Amino acid sequence: MNKKLCLGAFMRPISLHTAWWRHPNAAPQANFDFPIIKDLVRKLEDACFDAVFLADHLAVMNMPTNALKRSGTITSFEPLTLLSALAACTTNIGLIATGTTSYEEPYLTARRFASLDHLSSGRAGWNIVTTVNTEAAYNFGLESARLHAERYERAGEFFKVVTGLWDGWADDALLMDKESGIFFDPEKIKPLNHKGKYFSVKGPLNIARPVQGWPVIALAGASDAARQMAAESADLVFGNARTIETARSFYKDVKTRAIAAGRNPDHLKILPANQVYVAATREEAYRKKQVMDDLVHVDSNLPNLSLKLGVDVSGFDLDKPLPDIPETEQSKGHQREWIALAQREGLTVRELAKRAAGSGIGEMIGTPSEVADQMEEWLLTEACDGFMMVFHSAPDGYDDFTSMVVPELQRRGLFRTRYEGGTLRDTIGLPRPDSRVD
Amino acid sequence: MNKKLCLGAFMRPISLHTAWWRHPNAAPQANFDFPIIKDLVRKLEDACFDAVFLADHLAVMNMPTNALKRSGTITSFEPLTLLSALAACTTNIGLIATGTTSYEEPYLTARRFASLDHLSSGRAGWNIVTTVNTEAAYNFGLESARLHAERYERAGEFFKVVTGLWDGWADDALLMDKESGIFFDPEKIKPLNHKGKYFSVKGPLNIARPVQGWPVIALAGASDAARQMAAESADLVFGNARTIETARSFYKDVKTRAIAAGRNPDHLKILPANQVYVAATREEAYRKKQVMDDLVHVDSNLPNLSLKLGVDVSGFDLDKPLPDIPETEQSKGHQREWIALAQREGLTVRELAKRAAGSGIGEMIGTPSEVADQMEEWLLTEACDGFMMVFHSAPDGYDDFTSMVVPELQRRGLFRTRYEGGTLRDTIGLPRPDSRVD
Ligand SMILES: Cc1cc2nc3c(=O)[nH]c(=O)nc-3n(C[C@H](O)[C@H](O)[C@H](O)COP(=O)(O)O)c2cc1C
Ligand SMILES: Cc1cc2nc3c(=O)[nH]c(=O)nc-3n(C[C@H](O)[C@H](O)[C@H](O)COP(=O)(O)O)c2cc1C
Repeated sequence: MNKKLCLGAFMRPISLHTAWWRHPNAAPQANFDFPIIKDLVRKLEDACFDAVFLADHLAVMNMPTNALKRSGTITSFEPLTLLSALAACTTNIGLIATGTTSYEEPYLTARRFASLDHLSSGRAGWNIVTTVNTEAAYNFGLESARLHAERYERAGEFFKVVTGLWDGWADDALLMDKESGIFFDPEKIKPLNHKGKYFSVKGPLNIARPVQGWPVIALAGASDAARQMAAESADLVFGNARTIETARSFYKDVKTRAIAAGRNPDHLKILPANQVYVAATREEAYRKKQVMDDLVHVDSNLPNLSLKLGVDVSGFDLDKPLPDIPETEQSKGHQREWIALAQREGLTVRELAKRAAGSGIGEMIGTPSEVADQMEEWLLTEACDGFMMVFHSAPDGYDDFTSMVVPELQRRGLFRTRYEGGTLRDTIGLPRPDSRVD
Repeated sequence: MNKKLCLGAFMRPISLHTAWWRHPNAAPQANFDFPIIKDLVRKLEDACFDAVFLADHLAVMNMPTNALKRSGTITSFEPLTLLSALAACTTNIGLIATGTTSYEEPYLTARRFASLDHLSSGRAGWNIVTTVNTEAAYNFGLESARLHAERYERAGEFFKVVTGLWDGWADDALLMDKESGIFFDPEKIKPLNHKGKYFSVKGPLNIARPVQGWPVIALAGASDAARQMAAESADLVFGNARTIETARSFYKDVKTRAIAAGRNPDHLKILPANQVYVAATREEAYRKKQVMDDLVHVDSNLPNLSLKLGVDVSGFDLDKPLPDIPETEQSKGHQREWIALAQREGLTVRELAKRAAGSGIGEMIGTPSEVADQMEEWLLTEACDGFMMVFHSAPDGYDDFTSMVVPELQRRGLFRTRYEGGTLRDTIGLPRPDSRVD
């Protein structure tokens, strides 16, 4: 059997491109309009996407007002409520929500994802994040975000509690026998009795084991701690490589760690973010990109770069190379990549800021067959197992990709032409974890 | 204009009757089956109900195994995910979820209810609870539930933060001007900068002000602190009076407090829980009740009573009157009512336990016109502004009420025959709070 692509769609916001909402065909409120989002997701389901993915940030982003007021993400739906509504309007596509381990309670997280998994007949996924931004900390009684190491230690314990709660139910605990009046078998539901450094949780959960055993587990960290956690625990890893070489080395690193952790590396799918500009001709594709990038106001560029680097760049000389930047707790992974990019290409701060303008993520540009060539090369040379697609605008970015690139991938046998049914784990080709109670 | 009834439906669980799932026509998994719940809610929407209401408990109930294993509520959907899915399948009916102030973060609660309100075009409601049961405390790192006074103090601050976050956005903050590239007016979104005893929350919220300004606020406490909070802050008060006299005195007390707090008492609707058995003849209605009560196993009775009284009654002599019971922190309100019932009617422990068997809530039994007579009397003599209906079984309890009682209430002009459109606040007749930013 051919290796096939796994395709997710980055749906919160509608696009990571700063100017997506200014596209001539865009409904600027798309990020916050349920009927529009529903139509986009149905389009992705018609194109047989594995899943939609909702990123999440627990605060209004910390940017200078001049940039912030231009951002289309000031308001958006909360991921689990939005995905639950979408569950009721779709049949096959996976529904992956970001959930933080820093400001939630594991009992509530376990329960909400189990609830989404049951509502959707087994299509839920949980993207585990530790939430780096300080602005979020201020909304939860802290004066700054926790340190990187503590965030990941806490995330590890959080994950242990959540999966322990899911596994506290046997799959066949419910009897529902009207005759005897016995609803469930008490031997098949066990308390967790977890007492750890960060959490103390008795259990059991007040909802049955998820349809998938565990919802699909995703992780999107770049640092050592995050890669290790992904290798040990994730089903999907969202990456952010801008070149095939970076992608290959990330792929190799994480898969090697997975093997060392005793896992089958095929059960961990690595999906770099990817923004595609596609058209009948290469020139037209580049023109589409130009249209989008020209819509980005200069005020939006510098704060974007500050975010990537984890330091405020507004005081830097724009026409000099990037000065030395101290390693910060905010974002070790991102920071390293952006410094490397500036050095590799000898960019000034202004030029580097322009790169951060669109979305700062990997791009593929060209005709349907040129884009498919690149995707195929990434897949077949172990740079990825698929992609987390970011669309530059809506509906155009969505329509372009589903109408031009997907059929080409399907013709090449690189992507499914219909769903086989079953759960999101079945669709992606992931095993179902066993319960700890039988 | 005639005074009209406000009708809510208690939907989690499907019924409070211990044996609802054993009814011959019941699907025993109804509480945990989305298509079934969707059909029931659509039935209620066809009958023009104001809202469905989802209770919530953050733990598996603490009952002896012998009783617990007979309970159909061991598993159920989490309220906000379920209501979001229902929002996508309905148009007019209100969607009220219980949310605790003891184990959630106010930033997240404000955001999730705002998200549901936007997803449903203004049909969300929040039933504020402080979560009395100790079993829940164990799932959140505590060794016991917080004391009653502390719970309500914390609830007050929680409510202040949540509403402050909703009011941190002007209603017209979003500009979405493609031409200038300005998405929102930064003058119209303000941080909260709350620093209090329990919470410290900067804000602003990362979602626009709810469609309704504030989702409808419900409260269901019985104690002095709860009544006072309801009188000051709630739009709906869920009560649990078993007699019209108790209901009238509760009604008078809460409305008087509302007036003292400077509110228009018509803007606070009091809805006692009410379980109806209705049939073409009174005998048949009583037979329906008998069928249900006979399905309750004796093992289910005593723990139900223990819950109501907040003490373990399993050691009591079943054929003697209730011994003296110390006032506990668990549930001052409930406890008082049940002790009064035993004294008023001179019941033994066994007899009192039988009363706790079904659901322990107020009942109306008879022909459609007899039931409508009682509901009318309660409405017109200031015992209530409507009811929070509990159905004894599904689909029968739902079908009986919507096909027999609702048309009779409509004939009498006591209940709407169609929705007027608009938000849940519009449907119920509640004002829309102004934002603090304009
Ligand atoms: C594709 C992708 C999506 C991400 N989505 C989120 C998100 O929704 N919320 C969030 O707080 N962080 C998100 N992140 C950030 C990562 O979780 C992580 O914190 C960041 O990459 C820094 O890496 P580190 O935590 O390993 O230092 C995302 C990262 C990538 C590459
Ligand atoms: C109709 C009704 C519904 C209720 N729903 C819930 C609920 O969903 N979750 C919960 O923890 N408590 C619920 N309660 C309990 C109340 O919130 C309250 O804690 C209880 O009545 C004890 O009163 P007190 O808190 O004033 O002492 C409900 C009470 C009533 C009467």
